[in-house]
Amino acid sequence: MNSISEKYRLLKEISGSHSPSLNSIKEKIPELKINVDACFLSNPYATELFLEYFKREMLDTNEIYSVLEFYPSQNKIIANYVEKQLNIDSGHIFICNGAIEAIQAVIHRYSKGKMVVILPTFSSYYEYATNECEVVYYTLDKTNNFKLDVDDYIESVKKIRPNTIVLINPNNPDGGYVSQNEINKIIEELYWVENIIIDESFIHFAYEDDDFTMKSIVSNVLKKENVIVIKSMSKDFGIAGLRCGYAVMSKERVEDLLRNGYLWNSNGIAEYFFQLYSRNDFFERYEIVRKKYINESKLFFDNLLRIDNIKIYPSRANFVLIELLNGLLAEEVSAKLLCDFGVYVRNCNDKIGLNGEFIRVAARSSHENKIILKALEDVTQIN
Amino acid sequence: MNSISEKYRLLKEISGSHSPSLNSIKEKIPELKINVDACFLSNPYATELFLEYFKREMLDTNEIYSVLEFYPSQNKIIANYVEKQLNIDSGHIFICNGAIEAIQAVIHRYSKGKMVVILPTFSSYYEYATNECEVVYYTLDKTNNFKLDVDDYIESVKKIRPNTIVLINPNNPDGGYVSQNEINKIIEELYWVENIIIDESFIHFAYEDDDFTMKSIVSNVLKKENVIVIKSMSKDFGIAGLRCGYAVMSKERVEDLLRNGYLWNSNGIAEYFFQLYSRNDFFERYEIVRKKYINESKLFFDNLLRIDNIKIYPSRANFVLIELLNGLLAEEVSAKLLCDFGVYVRNCNDKIGLNGEFIRVAARSSHENKIILKALEDVTQIN
Repeated sequence: MNSISEKYRLLKEISGSHSPSLNSIKEKIPELKINVDACFLSNPYATELFLEYFKREMLDTNEIYSVLEFYPSQNKIIANYVEKQLNIDSGHIFICNGAIEAIQAVIHRYSKGKMVVILPTFSSYYEYATNECEVVYYTLDKTNNFKLDVDDYIESVKKIRPNTIVLINPNNPDGGYVSQNEINKIIEELYWVENIIIDESFIHFAYEDDDFTMKSIVSNVLKKENVIVIKSMSKDFGIAGLRCGYAVMSKERVEDLLRNGYLWNSNGIAEYFFQLYSRNDFFERYEIVRKKYINESKLFFDNLLRIDNIKIYPSRANFVLIELLNGLLAEEVSAKLLCDFGVYVRNCNDKIGLNGEFIRVAARSSHENKIILKALEDVTQIN
Repeated sequence: MNSISEKYRLLKEISGSHSPSLNSIKEKIPELKINVDACFLSNPYATELFLEYFKREMLDTNEIYSVLEFYPSQNKIIANYVEKQLNIDSGHIFICNGAIEAIQAVIHRYSKGKMVVILPTFSSYYEYATNECEVVYYTLDKTNNFKLDVDDYIESVKKIRPNTIVLINPNNPDGGYVSQNEINKIIEELYWVENIIIDESFIHFAYEDDDFTMKSIVSNVLKKENVIVIKSMSKDFGIAGLRCGYAVMSKERVEDLLRNGYLWNSNGIAEYFFQLYSRNDFFERYEIVRKKYINESKLFFDNLLRIDNIKIYPSRANFVLIELLNGLLAEEVSAKLLCDFGVYVRNCNDKIGLNGEFIRVAARSSHENKIILKALEDVTQIN
């Protein structure tokens, strides 16, 4: 047991500020049996739906073989599928090899000067800053449940006068949500910021009404030259292995990025996914599993509230940030969950801006959520 | 027929200086039946070999589903597989989403000042130059069969005093080969050039002896801080849809590139391929199909020599550059090949540095080579 947890510690060390992937764990610690990957933020029902189509249209037809053999289409051609689904003008979409490629492209190319990053955050946003960019942190208040105080944020940004601001909505790792009206207010008031990056990678899990309607700001910002919306498809569609993402920005910026790069950055299966994404038959069924997953996640978060010695922070994403209380340590709790129960969660010790002991736990299928609940209940008991 | 060729012309127009992919053609011109894709530079026997493993290890086991659902490993972990196969120290490998990502990364980051590019060439090398980089061309002589005159090249580079030189070996689109001794001479004499980029994407098809031994310079240049070897896996392994490539460079440069980028730039199937690539059972079988393909390609090139009204330039790659003589036009010949015979070849009209009418034709399986031969014989007849 100790040797497993030691091997995991080493693997984590070489993975830096991100968690080792399931593949890497399987490869390096084959004796470890993972039952539930609650580190991984994705909708398992959407994965099932994608795989159903993939099996029928790619495997059963042997089409998969051509898709692997031949060159995929160029960036602009794949962008057409996204434009069709989002019902927007051609030229606003930059297709990327996972949202992280868009983060890299945008920050490397446009973030020169100060960049305001809200803490806690997804670490790539500050890690990808180049020497020409100075990261300034705006830290969310734990005592305010990591809720963004929009007016205070706007005032702070006005004082800092940055070139770039980054807002992940819902935020990772706490799941805090900023309403569409508030986002619009931020964009209006901070109109002079050259790059307003809104990361909507978890927006499919957020809602403002009982019908769980999606609340993306994409259509509101097409005319704002300074707004860039970044979107991962890995979480909502449960397809991290495909590396699919896109960013919505002005046509000039898309042209600028494509002028000398990013020509063939999608693989053949990613291209198939984007085609699928543009199809109504697929999207209608996706909407059903999206809402089913939100429903079950809400129930899971409610059940977590009953466990002693932990605090659950409010989330509109598909994960919750959990603070460990009464002397429980994140490293110990996550190691026990992994080694004793095969439940893989995110130890947040390396997350800057978090003061205390925190883990992040993803919602999975209702069956897996029960396993997580039971395991967490066990390891957080204090005798 | 005219409408097909018109549709193709439009598709080509939006594809810029590259050919439309087979996927794009299928999507936009469904009525067009392509029998042989001789635009696409890859070893079909290697594709078959990969797909055999892929079917057994990914499809039959259902492992494919996990590979698509979960995050692939990080760059450095996948690099270990390549290091193992190349038998080199850890830290020299930069994994990329197709070789074109390495071209972009290296040129954007390191090519500041003059860059000498040999013409004709793969267009991305000059297209990816940024504003900080001035491209200077060194044009190969058609009357010398596009053979690089190494001494003249070295003298020219000494006069130009560039920051970067690019050498594709064998060269694309002519297939001209520079021997390992000559490459070493270039590297020795031009030791002061900050970035010597050697693109070995077609090196698996080149040979200097009757046994077709591979002649990569990777092991000779590990201690040269200024040499960067770029390698596509799409051609030799026949897996363009996977987007697999790597670059070999100094550990400092790999660290520098990974410091704020390129973290998760491989998809799950690309990771599987790199694992396979590191395995001896796979590699031994690959060597057999590599040599079989070289043998058949040689035969194909010899047979092409018998066709009238064209000139075949000597090639050690898996394609030949063909000059059309006696008034034949590249646009007409390639359109006829496509529309009348379903044979897709590369019309080289957009290749700079080519003075005349040229098409590039890839070697395929021996069966497909016969179809190409017959079609080409037909469309180059002059009545």
